[in-house]
Amino acid sequence: MARIVMKFGGTSMAGTERIRRVAQIVRKQQAAGHEVAVVVSAMAGETDRLVNFCREANPLYDPAEYDVVVASGEQVTSGLLALTLQAMGCKARSWLGWQLPVRTVEAHANARVADIDSAALIAAMRAGEIAVIPGFQGVSDAGRITTLGRGGSDTSAVAVAAAVEADRCDIYTDVDGVYTTDPRIVARARKLKYVTYEEMLELASVGAKVLQTRSVSLAMKRGVRVQVLSSFIGDDAPPADDLPGTMIVSDEEMEGIDMERQLVTGIAHDKNEARVVLTRVPDKPGAVAHIFEPLAQASINVDMIIQNVGREKGETDVTFTVPQADLVRAQALLEDKREQIGFNRIITDSKVAKISVVGVGMKSHAGVAATMFKALADRGINIQAISTSEIKVSVLIDEDETELAVRVLHTAYGLDAEDAAA
Amino acid sequence: MARIVMKFGGTSMAGTERIRRVAQIVRKQQAAGHEVAVVVSAMAGETDRLVNFCREANPLYDPAEYDVVVASGEQVTSGLLALTLQAMGCKARSWLGWQLPVRTVEAHANARVADIDSAALIAAMRAGEIAVIPGFQGVSDAGRITTLGRGGSDTSAVAVAAAVEADRCDIYTDVDGVYTTDPRIVARARKLKYVTYEEMLELASVGAKVLQTRSVSLAMKRGVRVQVLSSFIGDDAPPADDLPGTMIVSDEEMEGIDMERQLVTGIAHDKNEARVVLTRVPDKPGAVAHIFEPLAQASINVDMIIQNVGREKGETDVTFTVPQADLVRAQALLEDKREQIGFNRIITDSKVAKISVVGVGMKSHAGVAATMFKALADRGINIQAISTSEIKVSVLIDEDETELAVRVLHTAYGLDAEDAAA
Repeated sequence: MARIVMKFGGTSMAGTERIRRVAQIVRKQQAAGHEVAVVVSAMAGETDRLVNFCREANPLYDPAEYDVVVASGEQVTSGLLALTLQAMGCKARSWLGWQLPVRTVEAHANARVADIDSAALIAAMRAGEIAVIPGFQGVSDAGRITTLGRGGSDTSAVAVAAAVEADRCDIYTDVDGVYTTDPRIVARARKLKYVTYEEMLELASVGAKVLQTRSVSLAMKRGVRVQVLSSFIGDDAPPADDLPGTMIVSDEEMEGIDMERQLVTGIAHDKNEARVVLTRVPDKPGAVAHIFEPLAQASINVDMIIQNVGREKGETDVTFTVPQADLVRAQALLEDKREQIGFNRIITDSKVAKISVVGVGMKSHAGVAATMFKALADRGINIQAISTSEIKVSVLIDEDETELAVRVLHTAYGLDAEDAAA
Repeated sequence: MARIVMKFGGTSMAGTERIRRVAQIVRKQQAAGHEVAVVVSAMAGETDRLVNFCREANPLYDPAEYDVVVASGEQVTSGLLALTLQAMGCKARSWLGWQLPVRTVEAHANARVADIDSAALIAAMRAGEIAVIPGFQGVSDAGRITTLGRGGSDTSAVAVAAAVEADRCDIYTDVDGVYTTDPRIVARARKLKYVTYEEMLELASVGAKVLQTRSVSLAMKRGVRVQVLSSFIGDDAPPADDLPGTMIVSDEEMEGIDMERQLVTGIAHDKNEARVVLTRVPDKPGAVAHIFEPLAQASINVDMIIQNVGREKGETDVTFTVPQADLVRAQALLEDKREQIGFNRIITDSKVAKISVVGVGMKSHAGVAATMFKALADRGINIQAISTSEIKVSVLIDEDETELAVRVLHTAYGLDAEDAAA
C-alpha cells in the first residue's frame, strides 16, 4: 500500500464526461489498495475566461480580488470530481484551500505555499476517503484567498504530496511523459523513463512545458518523487504503478538506476524569447548595472547576456534576451534610461529561438558544447548568443531554423529511437 | 447619512458591462453620504450551468459538494464588482460567506442563516469601504460551504441588512417595483408605493415573483425595511433615496402612511399549480391523513384542499392542488397508497390557474370574497376551488381564463390607474 497524490490538468477536467474518466483512473488507484488524494485544475479555458473578466472589470486589477474570482474555477472542478467519485461508490470530499488550510505568503496572484495542515487530510485518507483538493489556491494569514500563479496546480500537488509524505506524486497531463525532445518535431524522440530534478528544471524553463518550474523546484527541495503520466489512457489500462510515465528523481537515485546514461538527456526549444541589442554602451564600471536594474525592478526576466567589444574603443555592444511578452515594456524602460545608460541604438528581434541541450551527464564530461557548435555549423545555422550552466548549453538562433536545429542535435547526441515511425 | 444594503440580481450582474452599471448605482449611493454594503447574485444563467454540471456528475448529488460548486457563481461576481468599484476610485472589497462569516444551519443546498458576524463589516463600512458580499452562500459549523436555495440572495441581503442594522435594504431587480397586478396582463396596473410584509408574502407565494418568499418572512421578523427597485435606470437617475420603487413596511407603518387605503392591494395569478381529485374516499376519521401524510413526507407542497360530499353516503371526493412540477410524483405516491386510502379514481388537471386577491384591508372589511365571486360569475368564469386566509382570497379556475379573470378583478376592486396607456 502506498500513499499517492494524483494531479489532473485542465484538459483532463474539461467537462463532466472527462471528469468521469479522471474519476475512473482515481478509483482504480484506490482499488489497488492505495491512499489517494487528488489535486485538480480548472476546466480548460475557464481560468482564461475568469482572468478576462477581471481585466474587463479593472485593467489594473487588485490581485486580492483577482484571486477571489480566478480561484473559483478549481473550486468547481473539485466539487464535481468529488460528486463523480461518489456516483461511482467511492467515499470522497473536496477540501478547499481555506479549509485544509493551504497557508501561503500574502503575495496575491503569485503566492507561495508556506505550509499545509495535513492532519485532517491524512485522517480522511486513512479512513478510505478520497481527498479532492483544488489546485492553484490557498489562503493568506489575513484569511483571504490567494492563488499560486498560472500553472500553480502542479505546485499545489507537490506541496500536498510533501505535506502528507506521499510515496509518489503522479502528474497526469495531455502528454504521456517527458521526451528527449518535442515529438512533434522529431518523430524519433524517445520517452525518458527517468529524468533528474535538475534536468527537468532546465527542460521546463526552456520550453518543454510539461510541469510548472516551481513545482519541480519544490519537489527537489522536499524530495517528492514526481511521475509524469498521460490521463488519456484506455479504461482497461493498468493502475499507475505500472504505467509507462516518466519518473523525476534525484541525482543519487539516478546514478543507481542508470550508470551508463547518455551525456545529454534532452533537447529543448523556446520561441518565446526576444533579443535586444544596445549598441555603443560606454565600457565603464556600472554601465551594465544601469541596463539591468530597471528591468529587474519591473520583474522582467533577463536570460542570456553577451557583451561584445564595440567598434570604438571604450564602447561595447550588449546583447540579451527577454520574454517576448515583455519586449515592448523592456524597450520603453530602456528608452527612459537612455541618457543614464548612454547607449546609441536599441535593436530588437523577436524572431529568435533558444535551443538547449540538457543533461546531468555533462557535469563530468567535456566536449558537449563543442559537439553542439559543430553540428549546427555543419548545417549552416548561425549562433547569435550562447549561455551555459552546469547541465545545459543554450544557443540563440533564427526562429525559422528551430526545427532543423532540434533534429540535427537530437541525432548528433545519439538520442534518436532505434525504430520509430519516420 | 444612512446605512444601506443594496442587492442586485443575476440579470443586473450578467457580464462586466452590466456590472459597471451596478457599480455606478452603488457609487452614487456612497457619494450621497451613505454607508453601503452590496449583496450580489451570480451572472444570469451561471447557477443553472453549475447545477447542470452537478446533475451530470451525479444525479443523486451530495448537497455538500453541490454547494461547493454552485456557490462559485456569486464568488465570481462579488470579486468582479469589487474590482469594478475600485476602477471607479471607490474603496471596496469582497467578503465571502466563510470570511464574514455568514453562519447557517447545516442543511446543505437549502440552508438558513443562523447569524452573521457584522463587526468587521460595520468597521469596513464606517471606514468608507464598500462591502461586496456574495449572496446565496454561507458556512456551516463544520466549516463547509452552504447555500440558501434558489433565489437565496434576496434572503442574504435581508440577513445582512438585519445584522448591520441597516436603515434600508434596497433590492434591485428587473422590474421597477411591486404592481397591483402583472402589467403584462393589465396595462392599467399601478405600481404600489407601499406594501406590507404580509401582503408581499401572499403576493410572492402566489406568483408575483419579485422577491424570494423567505426573504420577506425574514424582513418581517427582523423589521428590515425593504425597497424593491429597478436596476435599469439611466446614469443620471437620482440616488435611490428618491427613486420611485416599492417600499415593504409593517402593518403599523402602513396605517400611518395610508389611512384610507384600498381594501385590496393586488391581484396575483399562478399557473404552476395542478389540481388532483380523489373520488369516493371513505368518509371516516383518518382517511384524509392517509392522503396528505405521504405527500408531506415527500416535501410536496399541498395548497388548496376541498372536501366535497360524495354521491354515495359514507364517501367523499377530495380535491387539492400541488405544484405542477410535483404532479407526477404525487400521483405515483397516491397510487402506491390506493388500498390504504381507499379511493376510486385519481383525476388530475394541470390546466388550472390560481387567482388571488390580496390586501390587509380585508382584515376589517367583509364582502371582499363576495365581490370576487360575483365579478367572475358575471363573466361566466367557473370557480373550481376556493381558499382564504386573513388577507387573501384565492380561487382555482381554468388556465385559459387567467388573463380575463385578472382584468375583471383589477377593475372590480377599483385598482385601474386613472390614465395609462390602454
